Amino acid sequence: MAPHIAAILAIGDEVLRGEIRNTNATFLSERLFDAGLEVCEQRVVADQAAAMQRALQELAQRAAVVVVTGGLGPTEDDRTVDVVADLLGVEAEPHSASLEAMKKRFAAHGFELTPNNLRQVRVPRGAEALPNEAGIAPGFLVRMAGHAVYFLPGIPREMERIYLDHVAPRLRAHMAAQGVPGAAVRTWHVYGMGESHIDHRLAKLLENIPRATLHFRTDAPENHVKVVIRGPDTDKNQELLEQVDRDLRKRIGPGIYGVDGENFPMVVGQSLRAAGTTLALAESCTGGEAGQMITAEPGASDFFLGSVVAYSNDVKVNVLGVKAATIAESGAVSEPCAKEMAEGARRVTGAAIAVSITGVAGPAKERDPSASGTSEKPVGTVCLALASAKSTKAVSKLFSGDRQSIRRAAAYFALDLARRHSQ
Amino acid sequence: MAPHIAAILAIGDEVLRGEIRNTNATFLSERLFDAGLEVCEQRVVADQAAAMQRALQELAQRAAVVVVTGGLGPTEDDRTVDVVADLLGVEAEPHSASLEAMKKRFAAHGFELTPNNLRQVRVPRGAEALPNEAGIAPGFLVRMAGHAVYFLPGIPREMERIYLDHVAPRLRAHMAAQGVPGAAVRTWHVYGMGESHIDHRLAKLLENIPRATLHFRTDAPENHVKVVIRGPDTDKNQELLEQVDRDLRKRIGPGIYGVDGENFPMVVGQSLRAAGTTLALAESCTGGEAGQMITAEPGASDFFLGSVVAYSNDVKVNVLGVKAATIAESGAVSEPCAKEMAEGARRVTGAAIAVSITGVAGPAKERDPSASGTSEKPVGTVCLALASAKSTKAVSKLFSGDRQSIRRAAAYFALDLARRHSQ
Repeated sequence: MAPHIAAILAIGDEVLRGEIRNTNATFLSERLFDAGLEVCEQRVVADQAAAMQRALQELAQRAAVVVVTGGLGPTEDDRTVDVVADLLGVEAEPHSASLEAMKKRFAAHGFELTPNNLRQVRVPRGAEALPNEAGIAPGFLVRMAGHAVYFLPGIPREMERIYLDHVAPRLRAHMAAQGVPGAAVRTWHVYGMGESHIDHRLAKLLENIPRATLHFRTDAPENHVKVVIRGPDTDKNQELLEQVDRDLRKRIGPGIYGVDGENFPMVVGQSLRAAGTTLALAESCTGGEAGQMITAEPGASDFFLGSVVAYSNDVKVNVLGVKAATIAESGAVSEPCAKEMAEGARRVTGAAIAVSITGVAGPAKERDPSASGTSEKPVGTVCLALASAKSTKAVSKLFSGDRQSIRRAAAYFALDLARRHSQ
Repeated sequence: MAPHIAAILAIGDEVLRGEIRNTNATFLSERLFDAGLEVCEQRVVADQAAAMQRALQELAQRAAVVVVTGGLGPTEDDRTVDVVADLLGVEAEPHSASLEAMKKRFAAHGFELTPNNLRQVRVPRGAEALPNEAGIAPGFLVRMAGHAVYFLPGIPREMERIYLDHVAPRLRAHMAAQGVPGAAVRTWHVYGMGESHIDHRLAKLLENIPRATLHFRTDAPENHVKVVIRGPDTDKNQELLEQVDRDLRKRIGPGIYGVDGENFPMVVGQSLRAAGTTLALAESCTGGEAGQMITAEPGASDFFLGSVVAYSNDVKVNVLGVKAATIAESGAVSEPCAKEMAEGARRVTGAAIAVSITGVAGPAKERDPSASGTSEKPVGTVCLALASAKSTKAVSKLFSGDRQSIRRAAAYFALDLARRHSQ
């Protein structure tokens, strides 16, 4: 058994009935991979003792590290502790630190302890408890078939907390003991460039870098490029990663808007804040999505004044001051209308710049031509404009996909106009 | 082996690295469950022949029906057809109808066929091909260890299409042959009532109904209650379901806003459309989310005129006509301010009714008191108002959770005010 082979097991009938998604497996897979482990299998089984036992025995045979989630709750259906204790031939017993923490917590809220709560702080005798700072049930670590098996709660917030606090450091030590140094990992976030385009530009990016891999994920309209470098020397890995960073930025250019924990609204906000400018929006087909996006990150009040969602033509005319003649002559989805919308939003809010969006979001079957499009302005046609003190410029785009994708693409494009203007 | 035991296997390194979520497993689990099958296991393995073979052999031993996704693409990494052919001791050969369909499709687009494309239309000799109306690679059905094993592409759109076209009917026939009639299934969508509250009201709902189960799913601020009735007589099951429907509506009341394929924005829209009324919004802390939600469904232009997102106080005053004195005296997060926002939105848009939202979305650590809250107006405090020709009424709420949850809860509550007003 190679020491870097890992497996993930979830216990839960709700997942098997399709009622909840096994997001824990995705979280754990990504982190185990980044830590240098190779997940050979994800598995989900029902909370029945026989099924759990078989899965634990099989996976502990197949992987040096197994991470198990679920079945640590307070009810009779939560059998994980008992099943593991049985397998190991030991008793389950309360973990005293977790018991004390629970007692304090309950006393502070005036709750009464029930026998079920006492169930929840048990671990198999001899297991190493992994304290749960985000909840009641501790995780625990045991060895089966000579391999490390970690048990964590199924609630994602608690699972993630215990993983980061207690599992990740142990896995780093485990990998270091195997002579596997820390990998260097970075994810670049790209907007405004298609997947095949990026792929083409990244050809042979890692050609001369041993033990480096490239991973690609699309979450339209964004793409994410991840590079992992697993050479024998941690410092060298980091150095090579910085070299890849420079190369990658040369190849992709300004399409890279951020890395790792950064997100698009955050970066748009940073640009606007740094430029000391203020932004307003005028939205039609997006219905408020661009405003929702730019205010998703706290602190947007530093630069964002507001938005006029002018869904009806009357609101375009009466609130934003779009000329009725413009709509009659060019249509509501037109560059002239987009320009007057942006100018109107700037005027009524007093913002330094304003960006407008007006388009045909679909679907094509709608009876309303403003949704369904025409041969001249098919579904996906979106006109946008940016108005500043100096000028107003409009642009037309044809986005593809369904109503939701088109609206999302339009909101991104609008915010990117503001970002590029303020750079 | 009970004939109603099923298992799901996905093949894909990207899932094991956490790059993509195994949404196929959730889709299949839910549909298999509704079809009367019990999924005993979900599994994901790498696209390596040995791992795939072991998983197929184990699952075909453990389940009467196995559904496998992935590994049917055009590249060398797509090994499913070859691995299955090897296991069965047969050759892989092109499925002629799929080959012809692909040729036609490529000719229509002027594409050239590559050898890789030919790989993609193969199935193991003797397998029953399951035509793919949404893509190139056909699915197929084989028997292993005497059990039915279905192979489908990993691309969700193609997988779902083949499942619905070819797998679901075969499973219905399989279950009918076992004497298992069609289950009656309905999901009720609930807004405005907490999980424990609903749970309490549903106590003993299914007490006198044999072979009926109740399933609960939370997607804040919504809750979903699903009932499945699996009695021996299909018509009787449906009759009992209607009885449960009446009982459930009595217990939950107007908290049930819809069933099955209905969603919240759709139902709000139906109410407004039926009442022949028009709606405007004035949003602050939600930044446009309520407008985005109500326009997510096409056809919103029938009743939705627009929204003023007044994120800054100046926009509240200058665009919506909120009195500066109101903000100075009561604060921007106050019922007086919410009332003036709603009245302003109604006035400037000409809508029959207008709903406003102003609140403290958090997080608490923000330096800006309008985000972080105060002891008087903690994070989660949201004031909303509805203005109509007759009156303006305000209400204050304290929502819990993070910034995103609070904003979402506020947007739902605002739209629900409009819905209730127009009923």
